[in-house]
Amino acid sequence: MQIETIDMQSAASELMRANNILLLCHKNPDGDTIGSATALMHALKNLGKTCAVICADEIPARYAYMQIDEFSNKFTPEYIIAIDTASLALLGNLPAEFTQKIDLCIDHHPSNTGYALSTLLDAKAAATAELMYNFILTFGTEITPIIADCLYTGVATDTGCFRFSNTSADTHDIAKKLIDEGANLEMLNSLLFESRSRSRIDLERMAYSSLEFFENDTCAVITLTLEELTKNKVEQIDLEGITAIPRSIEGVKAGITIRQIDDSTYKVSLRTTEGLNAAQICKTLGGGGHERAAGCEITGSLDKVKSAVLKEVLTALNG
Amino acid sequence: MQIETIDMQSAASELMRANNILLLCHKNPDGDTIGSATALMHALKNLGKTCAVICADEIPARYAYMQIDEFSNKFTPEYIIAIDTASLALLGNLPAEFTQKIDLCIDHHPSNTGYALSTLLDAKAAATAELMYNFILTFGTEITPIIADCLYTGVATDTGCFRFSNTSADTHDIAKKLIDEGANLEMLNSLLFESRSRSRIDLERMAYSSLEFFENDTCAVITLTLEELTKNKVEQIDLEGITAIPRSIEGVKAGITIRQIDDSTYKVSLRTTEGLNAAQICKTLGGGGHERAAGCEITGSLDKVKSAVLKEVLTALNG
Repeated sequence: MQIETIDMQSAASELMRANNILLLCHKNPDGDTIGSATALMHALKNLGKTCAVICADEIPARYAYMQIDEFSNKFTPEYIIAIDTASLALLGNLPAEFTQKIDLCIDHHPSNTGYALSTLLDAKAAATAELMYNFILTFGTEITPIIADCLYTGVATDTGCFRFSNTSADTHDIAKKLIDEGANLEMLNSLLFESRSRSRIDLERMAYSSLEFFENDTCAVITLTLEELTKNKVEQIDLEGITAIPRSIEGVKAGITIRQIDDSTYKVSLRTTEGLNAAQICKTLGGGGHERAAGCEITGSLDKVKSAVLKEVLTALNG
Repeated sequence: MQIETIDMQSAASELMRANNILLLCHKNPDGDTIGSATALMHALKNLGKTCAVICADEIPARYAYMQIDEFSNKFTPEYIIAIDTASLALLGNLPAEFTQKIDLCIDHHPSNTGYALSTLLDAKAAATAELMYNFILTFGTEITPIIADCLYTGVATDTGCFRFSNTSADTHDIAKKLIDEGANLEMLNSLLFESRSRSRIDLERMAYSSLEFFENDTCAVITLTLEELTKNKVEQIDLEGITAIPRSIEGVKAGITIRQIDDSTYKVSLRTTEGLNAAQICKTLGGGGHERAAGCEITGSLDKVKSAVLKEVLTALNG
């Protein structure tokens, strides 16, 4: 179902009438939701508005360079924007007063449910940050170096540093402009892509040890149990990009990552190659997402979850 | 010492007068030397010229999509161009008739020795392909999709997919243009960066499982035994970049890789951060190299080899 969307100019005019603005990030925050929200925050503050960012989960320390103003109840939000968040559930556990009436959602997920009063959506954008770049220009503010840093973070992390299939000519065009506007490319790339924490290394070790192959090695599965994740102090930020590993193996068409959330809940991420619709497969399992990267949550034992996912994936592979 | 260079227009005019053109790649060919040479080859052939590429080493099969015409003595070269090659020695073992008079060198290495009659050099370019894009436009031919594929390969591989510090706004600008001209981004990124062989995956698994930390986690060691390498059919090409793993871990100042060569010989690779001279440490062990990346071979049991290396590294770390 196609949801109703608002055009950039109308969204900007609406926003410009507000003064006390709260920006919501999705739970398990990544570089795109935080980068896009913080870029908008800086742009709005440069226009003299009061603005802050809130997230149900802790914002990883590595993003400190963005100089995020986290919401601390110093103002009463009169206009609320959800950033890079496809559904209300993905906002996580935020105070109800902020989620019952969301004025605007700025997003690039085709699966956006249209929960906000207005939705500014570009499903072709590789990242919400790509869309945010043009949105900020719409209301005539400057892209300062720190805004460029925030937006580069969103674009670069959501595309796996310009590697994933969502990358387009526009993505590179915006990267070029952000570097021209002063994005600190060397610092950002080194921080985002060249340095790995001990817990990230432990996570990769777990991922490689758990690898299983199915269907003549066209399907690869990584399993991450809560016990191991806890033992190795794996944090949310460590998980970024881990779901790309199984699909990156030669010959693999469907890469599955099964991560235990609690005693009986598993988060499943599916990455596929051309011709295999990940969103469709995950929809049959109660989830959704993009054509090549989608996900769902399933309740049950690990064996049951794995079987359920494999059944759908193998059917699609042979379809 | 600054070498004398030629400008793009003059180089193009000179080249346009020739008809039978041979393009030389450097030995151990990479994506930039092959991509830049093959892009130029296609452009010159589109102008009706006779042109082929030669390399002292075999061109990896993964680059087959470039449709390289390898030189097979079907014409007598009247104009010879070395591509992405900083010195004569780097051409490797090519027939002397092709290396004694090289008309033009197109390169981006600041260390270029000026061995060709004319040198078209842009030391600021992230890749020779970046320079080649503009050079091909200079003589007014179209950037066809296959030329775009070749040039994208050069730019993307030499920048580690836009991650390394040589990446600039210009690099992204050219990537954008190449995608606009029809570079098959998804195929290329998947082939160049997303695809790892089973043996490479097994190697990474071995590397992660063997990780040990010393000296308050400032020193990390990976050990690869011959038995495991053989069992997992690890080939030379799989080993590329593996020595970068231990140093890439947060807090690690000295990353050591010990790889068994035969019963009692071990190849040691050392990567260090600023302030720790890898070449000096390896020199005390009978080896050598660069300041941040050096190596040596040591004979003995694994335990003895590891102790010998650790002793020198820990001394340097505490020095």
